[in-house]
Amino acid sequence: MAHEETIRYKATIAYDGTDFSGFQVQPSERTVQGEMEAVLKKINKGKFIRLHPSGRTDAGAHAAGMVFHFDYTRKIPEKGLFKAINTLISPDISLLKLERVADDFHARYHAKGKTYIYRIHNHELRDPFKRNFAYHHAYQIDKDRVEKALDILIGTHDFTSFCSTKTDKENKIRTIYDIVVEHDRESDEWQFIFYGNGFLYNMIRIIMGTVLPIADGRKEVEEMFKILEARDRNAAGKTLSANGLCLEKVHY
Amino acid sequence: MAHEETIRYKATIAYDGTDFSGFQVQPSERTVQGEMEAVLKKINKGKFIRLHPSGRTDAGAHAAGMVFHFDYTRKIPEKGLFKAINTLISPDISLLKLERVADDFHARYHAKGKTYIYRIHNHELRDPFKRNFAYHHAYQIDKDRVEKALDILIGTHDFTSFCSTKTDKENKIRTIYDIVVEHDRESDEWQFIFYGNGFLYNMIRIIMGTVLPIADGRKEVEEMFKILEARDRNAAGKTLSANGLCLEKVHY
Repeated sequence: MAHEETIRYKATIAYDGTDFSGFQVQPSERTVQGEMEAVLKKINKGKFIRLHPSGRTDAGAHAAGMVFHFDYTRKIPEKGLFKAINTLISPDISLLKLERVADDFHARYHAKGKTYIYRIHNHELRDPFKRNFAYHHAYQIDKDRVEKALDILIGTHDFTSFCSTKTDKENKIRTIYDIVVEHDRESDEWQFIFYGNGFLYNMIRIIMGTVLPIADGRKEVEEMFKILEARDRNAAGKTLSANGLCLEKVHY
Repeated sequence: MAHEETIRYKATIAYDGTDFSGFQVQPSERTVQGEMEAVLKKINKGKFIRLHPSGRTDAGAHAAGMVFHFDYTRKIPEKGLFKAINTLISPDISLLKLERVADDFHARYHAKGKTYIYRIHNHELRDPFKRNFAYHHAYQIDKDRVEKALDILIGTHDFTSFCSTKTDKENKIRTIYDIVVEHDRESDEWQFIFYGNGFLYNMIRIIMGTVLPIADGRKEVEEMFKILEARDRNAAGKTLSANGLCLEKVHY
């Protein structure tokens, strides 16, 4: 019998998070990791394969480019493996890319940065087609005010004010490289594109819940300085819902 | 006590049909009409109000502009009634417009025509975000061939070949005023916009199931003539899934 070669694969997937209890596997909950590991097990003739993600996403949050790695010892060519996974996986997940990588590649430790998009549907009326993919906000957003407030957060800061108190992470210092605001008048959709070296638990959702009252004039732009400096979760605004959040890309 | 005035309202709604067993009310099924009548009953202090739609939509099909009428005897101003309905209705339905109309207005009998859009996601890979709103087709679509085949159907014809045998309608003659094909290369989405005086049961879904094998070269354009002339459901293609179908507008 020939010696079985172990190959490490880097997988890039998209998923509609609406019907998942988040990415990370949990007993008796439907999770992206749970679904994906069940498929890998089927392909591996009943033998469990652990996948190692670049990170997690919350229940209801989406991904256009989540990355994970896994090791596989059978010698199916990439193309066959790619098709097999896409055939077996649930329709709310899609495998976009599968690449052979070096044995020491690690989806989490080697990630250099991440891009997230938070979407807001800014209209007096709700749109049933956007309800799972954008936060609905009825009051008018002032682009100039939003951009000024978000600019304050760009750079390396202690983001304690914008981190859920439920976290177990000690180090709250992160770098936001850029935040881009795009407004599409035709669809009434706003995109807030965050690019950083990493994001704390609920960080983008709390930033969005803090910037909205500034965006519609209920609070002053300068408040953002004070909130950042407070290093206190209570100083910031509410945590906006996860439906608006999408992990766009993991950078390596 | 003042005499209560009965007002007829014309309502325009949008809904994501994914989680509904169609528009028309059915016992122990979640339907758009069922949800809407439950809301009207609440607003009417527990007294049932029957709504009269412009037509039906299939389970899983959507609407961006479904119309119905109903009579209401309380004297709440339109704006209050509009807000009350939108507050009480499920998030997958949205009331877009509410207008007072003449007492003899009828949503179904007065409809002069309808516009439907059938969406196809044309890409080798599935997109989880489009799965409920577009039919996934992996083979390349030739715009010229589709347009030539669909042009054959424009005009007044006996559409028996494109009608579900489950219908109870005797008259299968309908007029299609126009069919417009739009292709967005960025999103890989095709829109097939049908404008006609009325459509038979499953008519657009069967037309789409017939045109696709022509669009990707499996069948000849001229086949469409023969299929139309056959006046036989078995001559046409399969019924494409309802997720791609959206009632865009009812014309009065």
